[in-house]
Amino acid sequence: MKQPATAHHLLSRIEDLIGPHLLRVEEQFDEELSHPEPFVKDLLSHISRFRGKRLRPILVLLTARAAGDIRPEHTILAAVTEMIHTATLVHDDILDEAEIRRHVATINNRWNNETSVLLGDYLFTHAFHLAASLDTTLACRLIGASTNRVCVGELMQIHERGNLALSEEQYLKIIDGKTAELCALCGELGAHYAGADEGLSQSLREYGRSLGIAFQIADDVLDVTGNEEETGKTLGSDFVKQKLTLPIIRLLESADETQREQIITWIEQGDQDSRRRLQEELRSSHSIEEAHQRAQEYAQQARLSLSGLMESPARRLLEDLTDFAVQRSF
Amino acid sequence: MKQPATAHHLLSRIEDLIGPHLLRVEEQFDEELSHPEPFVKDLLSHISRFRGKRLRPILVLLTARAAGDIRPEHTILAAVTEMIHTATLVHDDILDEAEIRRHVATINNRWNNETSVLLGDYLFTHAFHLAASLDTTLACRLIGASTNRVCVGELMQIHERGNLALSEEQYLKIIDGKTAELCALCGELGAHYAGADEGLSQSLREYGRSLGIAFQIADDVLDVTGNEEETGKTLGSDFVKQKLTLPIIRLLESADETQREQIITWIEQGDQDSRRRLQEELRSSHSIEEAHQRAQEYAQQARLSLSGLMESPARRLLEDLTDFAVQRSF
Repeated sequence: MKQPATAHHLLSRIEDLIGPHLLRVEEQFDEELSHPEPFVKDLLSHISRFRGKRLRPILVLLTARAAGDIRPEHTILAAVTEMIHTATLVHDDILDEAEIRRHVATINNRWNNETSVLLGDYLFTHAFHLAASLDTTLACRLIGASTNRVCVGELMQIHERGNLALSEEQYLKIIDGKTAELCALCGELGAHYAGADEGLSQSLREYGRSLGIAFQIADDVLDVTGNEEETGKTLGSDFVKQKLTLPIIRLLESADETQREQIITWIEQGDQDSRRRLQEELRSSHSIEEAHQRAQEYAQQARLSLSGLMESPARRLLEDLTDFAVQRSF
Repeated sequence: MKQPATAHHLLSRIEDLIGPHLLRVEEQFDEELSHPEPFVKDLLSHISRFRGKRLRPILVLLTARAAGDIRPEHTILAAVTEMIHTATLVHDDILDEAEIRRHVATINNRWNNETSVLLGDYLFTHAFHLAASLDTTLACRLIGASTNRVCVGELMQIHERGNLALSEEQYLKIIDGKTAELCALCGELGAHYAGADEGLSQSLREYGRSLGIAFQIADDVLDVTGNEEETGKTLGSDFVKQKLTLPIIRLLESADETQREQIITWIEQGDQDSRRRLQEELRSSHSIEEAHQRAQEYAQQARLSLSGLMESPARRLLEDLTDFAVQRSF
């Protein structure tokens, strides 16, 4: 499934098309996150080391370009969505008790949970303040509603932890909230502020949603099969926290009664040995391929949502992003 | 210092003047915090049991009435500030490891820390979404900036925990952020949306700030001297977390070297016996009176900020609120 060459090629095409805009987003992000208080400054400069895939800014800018023109508002909106995403990561790392994130110590690991809670709040409130610098309340309304849905998705995930009978439908609802909603928001904001009509804005919202679901399923597969060096983060936390993800849900569905009991015992034990055995069981079943297949279906659905767009390099990149979402190894 | 009769009298005068408006704020608050998902609904209805003093809605409505008319925007703004305050309480209870809040189990106690983090985020994002329902981005901008400063105040408090050389100036800077900023916001929003000019809006902002500082100093005195039954919350957490507050700062300043070492030992030991001894030491010194005196000075400063207002029942209530802030026992 690894295609690092393709991923690199995709990133360099993105760079060619919207590189200067992405740079301006980075600059805006860094400018916003400076503070005279040394302790706050330290925290914020640590945060800037969590430099990730920048998927959300890329989504805002590419959907904008594909639907019309990239305007100054898009720089702000892209920085806002990345800031909100970063806030959720800082809070997620508390929930997951994660120690590393993008090859760097998490805030809860380097400082403590209290600092993580407040730094996440700082990022959320800063993002809203920045969104409020636009002319109308539209972005604030859309961003407020979406981030609220993200919280519900995450709350449901916490609530369903340890529910070993979680259905695929419940799982999809959770990731729709916790991951896909913010990607949907990026598509809608990108299109709307580029002057797209309501229909096209909603299609690009749907594109973001399907892409986000595909992306999260792939992420959950990586949590089971990936290696920490390549992904740059603590893996296996879904297993430790008894969060059921698609590969395990499929494995449990296809298992007979004896196997099922065995799998549940491994999950309940939650140690390294049980995790290794579960991984072996997953690899010898079709569950990982099935989960991957499901991610492919959402990627296909995302591509279909692009049908209202004229042919353009930006549209082709949005199409190819769907492959990246499901085929990446990091 | 207890004057419950006065407090009750004040509350009934507030009730007489703005009761129906306060009721509408409560209704708006409850309406906003309903959710179809049973788990989220449970959490939100638990939150509604943290019914407190409603200081922030009262501030928005009284400053509005004192500066002009209460308008529909004020109901929304009052609900927003209460929701943000509730979000910070939910997150504070994680930081303080508090078990009870307004006579009810805290979210982290009844559920867990992860749920508290996400529920706080839910309340923050919901508040921003509600603020974005107003006509312009002004409220979102003011609210975003203020809540961001609240986070800095709280981060500084965490950072200075265990700093037994904390100065009064540093202490005041922290409470200016963590408590006074939101009260300042309430005054400014109340005045501005009632049609006050910039000068009056800023005066009422200053009123809120001074009131907030007075209120927080009184709260910190209560954490040392109050009883849990009357305040309805876990006390002594400042001591346990080695958060220096004004009474202790004053005590350390007035102590000779031997006493100072003894006090520091008690704080470092942090057990019930040390807390009791420290309380005795505080009571036999002038530190509590001095802290109370400082609170009175801020209350006086708050009253002076009202000088630009015409005489009215609302103005008199704002004046009397400053006494309540420093004299309350809950």
